[in-house]
Amino acid sequence: MKHQKLLTAFFTAIVFAVLAAPALAQAPNAPPQVTSPEVHADRKITFRLLAPKAESVRLSGGDIPGMGPGKELTKNDKGIWEITIGPIDPGTYRYNFNLGGVAVIDPRNPSVSESNGNVWSMVHVPGSEFQDTKNVPHGAVSAVTYYSTALGKFRRMHIYTPPGYEMGKGKFPVFYLLHGAGDCDDSWSSVGRAGFIVDNLIAAGKAKPMVIVMPAGHTRQNLRVTPPPATSGGAPPPDEFVQDFVTDIMPYVEKNYRVLTDRNNRAIAGLSMGGNHTLNIALPHLEKFAYVGVYSSGLLSAFMRAPQPGAPRPAPDAIPAITPAGEAWIKQHQAKLDDANLKKGLKLLWFATGKEDFLLGTTKGTLDLLKRHGFAPIYEETPGGHTWINWRNYLTDFAPKLFK
Amino acid sequence: MKHQKLLTAFFTAIVFAVLAAPALAQAPNAPPQVTSPEVHADRKITFRLLAPKAESVRLSGGDIPGMGPGKELTKNDKGIWEITIGPIDPGTYRYNFNLGGVAVIDPRNPSVSESNGNVWSMVHVPGSEFQDTKNVPHGAVSAVTYYSTALGKFRRMHIYTPPGYEMGKGKFPVFYLLHGAGDCDDSWSSVGRAGFIVDNLIAAGKAKPMVIVMPAGHTRQNLRVTPPPATSGGAPPPDEFVQDFVTDIMPYVEKNYRVLTDRNNRAIAGLSMGGNHTLNIALPHLEKFAYVGVYSSGLLSAFMRAPQPGAPRPAPDAIPAITPAGEAWIKQHQAKLDDANLKKGLKLLWFATGKEDFLLGTTKGTLDLLKRHGFAPIYEETPGGHTWINWRNYLTDFAPKLFK
Repeated sequence: MKHQKLLTAFFTAIVFAVLAAPALAQAPNAPPQVTSPEVHADRKITFRLLAPKAESVRLSGGDIPGMGPGKELTKNDKGIWEITIGPIDPGTYRYNFNLGGVAVIDPRNPSVSESNGNVWSMVHVPGSEFQDTKNVPHGAVSAVTYYSTALGKFRRMHIYTPPGYEMGKGKFPVFYLLHGAGDCDDSWSSVGRAGFIVDNLIAAGKAKPMVIVMPAGHTRQNLRVTPPPATSGGAPPPDEFVQDFVTDIMPYVEKNYRVLTDRNNRAIAGLSMGGNHTLNIALPHLEKFAYVGVYSSGLLSAFMRAPQPGAPRPAPDAIPAITPAGEAWIKQHQAKLDDANLKKGLKLLWFATGKEDFLLGTTKGTLDLLKRHGFAPIYEETPGGHTWINWRNYLTDFAPKLFK
Repeated sequence: MKHQKLLTAFFTAIVFAVLAAPALAQAPNAPPQVTSPEVHADRKITFRLLAPKAESVRLSGGDIPGMGPGKELTKNDKGIWEITIGPIDPGTYRYNFNLGGVAVIDPRNPSVSESNGNVWSMVHVPGSEFQDTKNVPHGAVSAVTYYSTALGKFRRMHIYTPPGYEMGKGKFPVFYLLHGAGDCDDSWSSVGRAGFIVDNLIAAGKAKPMVIVMPAGHTRQNLRVTPPPATSGGAPPPDEFVQDFVTDIMPYVEKNYRVLTDRNNRAIAGLSMGGNHTLNIALPHLEKFAYVGVYSSGLLSAFMRAPQPGAPRPAPDAIPAITPAGEAWIKQHQAKLDDANLKKGLKLLWFATGKEDFLLGTTKGTLDLLKRHGFAPIYEETPGGHTWINWRNYLTDFAPKLFK
């Protein structure tokens, strides 16, 4: 009964807040109202957290320029912790608070970006030509649940359908867009702004209307708790996501969506882990894809140096020696890699990586390998590092090159 | 540079976690792995939070049976706070932790339900015939951004399209489904499981394939901070959401989706505040809707008693006297309310409220009013209170009655 009374009081309060807001706005003894985040006209951002008992509150947000390892908030006499940062470049940023050693999202911000094992708060700084929400025709971004026969479980993907699609006319080219190790299938459409970017590019006549499929690259939630089995040989274990993609995702999309199914109307790209997935899917099935994009990545298992405790870190653009796993992979896919006919239909093999990216050497090693096998990859080396800032820019650059 | 090194270390760690998970799983000095929530086979749920420095951690989850005002977690010697509750009835529940006075979501749970000014963690207890994710054809639930000319800003709604819709054939009936004061446009498809419920009902032959539109009922994020202006007379202020619905939402859906636009193929329902919205939209536009549902609600501004501090709480089913605002509303819509011809095409006017619901009196007052004006509402009084448990059940009961 006590519970029922509390619930009643709670719901009565919010229903009355809606019906008679002016009265409640002035309610005595109400806790202070906290707005967070607040993006100012000069692109500074104020973050606030009401936590009178906390000993310290730190703001973390890896991608926010100048954020470094985090910034301490300051408490005022009402128990509100606050910090103002910036001006910050236009874009979308994930962040959270560290509250007594616990990473928590901003309790006052309903805007979130899901990841593989956690959720981030999200803040958008307007001012970008193609990333802002603009008054142009908008597509729809769906969450789609499917049963993966390859993995034996339910999975979710996000699918963008362009303006006009839902009225039912025509078929569209399809672009598979894969996320990174720190992300999930929600990431490209939340922090990645994929839907808004492509809406704006279509409205500006820069990109063709297309369906964008954003699947879940992680096949297990907590990789470190339940790792995939290692193989005894030198080759990396069979990639569960690649199996899911080939066996379930592509067939699901082609059965349930009005997408064109010829090579010239199929593209694939991914960032970081998703760039590795892209190569692992596209190179062995090159007859299926005319457009391939690799953002801040390469063949990770072939060209990524394991961190050596205590050893000096190599220069970021130093190309690692190819690993035994890489050699095994090349041998496995030798015929496709060296097939000159397949390359004729490959309209674009596009790489982009930041000068400060820790996968710069991996990118360069992969480019060299592909050239040795007769590919002609395009490579853009950009400012910046391994960030969503770059990945949104790469999508903005890449999407206009598709389906021409 | 220090920031870049930290970012590099972070991304290297997660990329390697993916490539070489077994090694990292055993890393020395790694913080303990915490899984939360863990739903056991006997439908008990264990919640965990790694917070060695916290003085107390409380679990809150208004809808969880037996939860009461919250339950304290217990800390073990590794700094992990833990509680096991239940067995809990199958269903989906919102919850959060109170960490030193701050309401935070579960940092280890990527499953969330957005609300108007905050985000909840979400846990699903399987075992329900129509609410579980089952291996049946699934529809798609989209987030759709539109520009509201009525409100002068961008707004979001969620739209469910049934299995088969995305292939482009046929037109479908449309069901507008409105959320409550404690929710947002995400709520019906997250904690409300609307997509999964209707997928299952369609697969079982119990409901017709339909498009479900779930708009955002709140027109401002923080109502208490920026309340809508009060009017000088007795009538409630013009409802901004009703304007948005009539001017923008319905026209957007009918322009951009393959929905049937005759009365017999249009339904509307809502819970709590959304039930009030439903009546405010449907009664003055009765020629547009053949099916109307009101869950745990009624005409709130007409039949809701303001809380009287110190006064004994009236019995929940006591019908409040009609307010001046209610009288004004009736007068305003008298012609429609008394139009016998409009009632002929109204195939269903369905109410359901729980016996313990604080809006039981409001429901009954509204039913009496409608009967006095010649309506023949169906009323189901169910066990329980003002909870998502009931609202999912009401949707499961209501959807099969539509478009017959």
